[in-house]
Amino acid sequence: MSGKFIVIEGLEGAGKSTASHCVRDILMQRGITLEQCREPGGTGLGEALRELVKSPDLEDSPCAKAELLLMYASRAQLVETRIKPALGKGSWVLGDRHDLSSQAYQGGGRQLSQAMLAQMRDLVLGDFRPDLTIYMDIDPVIGLERAGRRGALDRIEQESLDFFHRTRARYLELAEGDASIVTIDASQSLEKVEADIADAVNARISSWLSHD
Amino acid sequence: MSGKFIVIEGLEGAGKSTASHCVRDILMQRGITLEQCREPGGTGLGEALRELVKSPDLEDSPCAKAELLLMYASRAQLVETRIKPALGKGSWVLGDRHDLSSQAYQGGGRQLSQAMLAQMRDLVLGDFRPDLTIYMDIDPVIGLERAGRRGALDRIEQESLDFFHRTRARYLELAEGDASIVTIDASQSLEKVEADIADAVNARISSWLSHD
Repeated sequence: MSGKFIVIEGLEGAGKSTASHCVRDILMQRGITLEQCREPGGTGLGEALRELVKSPDLEDSPCAKAELLLMYASRAQLVETRIKPALGKGSWVLGDRHDLSSQAYQGGGRQLSQAMLAQMRDLVLGDFRPDLTIYMDIDPVIGLERAGRRGALDRIEQESLDFFHRTRARYLELAEGDASIVTIDASQSLEKVEADIADAVNARISSWLSHD
Repeated sequence: MSGKFIVIEGLEGAGKSTASHCVRDILMQRGITLEQCREPGGTGLGEALRELVKSPDLEDSPCAKAELLLMYASRAQLVETRIKPALGKGSWVLGDRHDLSSQAYQGGGRQLSQAMLAQMRDLVLGDFRPDLTIYMDIDPVIGLERAGRRGALDRIEQESLDFFHRTRARYLELAEGDASIVTIDASQSLEKVEADIADAVNARISSWLSHD
């Protein structure tokens, strides 16, 4: 089977790390090793941009479009210099966030137009898309409470609850219309969440195997 | 007369600073004061991006698309937070580089597609354009020699001569087809260069005055 690009998405505190461990374990049991990366970040340039875009101390906060462009600069660098080369060698890649985050956060949260976001995605990424996205759905009230327990909130985590409600609504809307996105109810018990992720990943792998 | 946005463009060593002083003096003689800015840069975020994009020590050089996106992130922030507010108050703005640099450097130099660059410009800037661009045209052999005398070359200045020949060719091509761009032969004597800039700026101001 050729390498696949799997992405974990969701709001702060939705349990993306748990989901990530879970996916890695399932793949390891099948003898598949993978490269992991995160967005923004995952390259020298990307990590520098992550610092910049998340810093609550920036002299001037990026305007919505500048924020979007920084996310895409990080993404372009990651896709060109790490993800595509890895997939090209037959490796699997597991990403913590990818393009769906921009569609949800900058589209839903910051209310940039959906048409503009779709054009930006096509300009930067062409037709490059993840093979599977696992969207961890959580009520932002619960997610932010969990995220807050982990330490100080970054610039984006400090946004209003409305911002995160809009972001979640956009995530759900996009997941609804896209067969490559699986929505997991992240408010369930850890056991149930892990079982749902395992079911989703195993079903998808079976389908890929049968098509290879 | 309402505020205008004037931009100085050109290769490294073309004499953009000289042109900038010259324009400022002409405007001051007419009692017009102006705000000055540069790209990439001109805001807290933009200056941080300038450091990043010009650094020859970056662990991984930005790929062509990431470089373009960083330039646009800096530009979006500058236009939204400084240039548009200044013009809105009736102030004049003098910019050291603007969108034409991306069209010439990332389009000509890095050979990104012209259609993609035009779409990116429209997505980020809408129909916002400079009122006048003064393009300082110089053979890159002369320009780089001048720039080298000023000190160590940055990451972009270290590109091959071919890169700068392609960049210049794109500058000339775009200037040819756009009445808002005036090309100045920067290989002439300082006196002649200054006289040509003064003629161009004064002619444009007369035309603006007659239309106001």
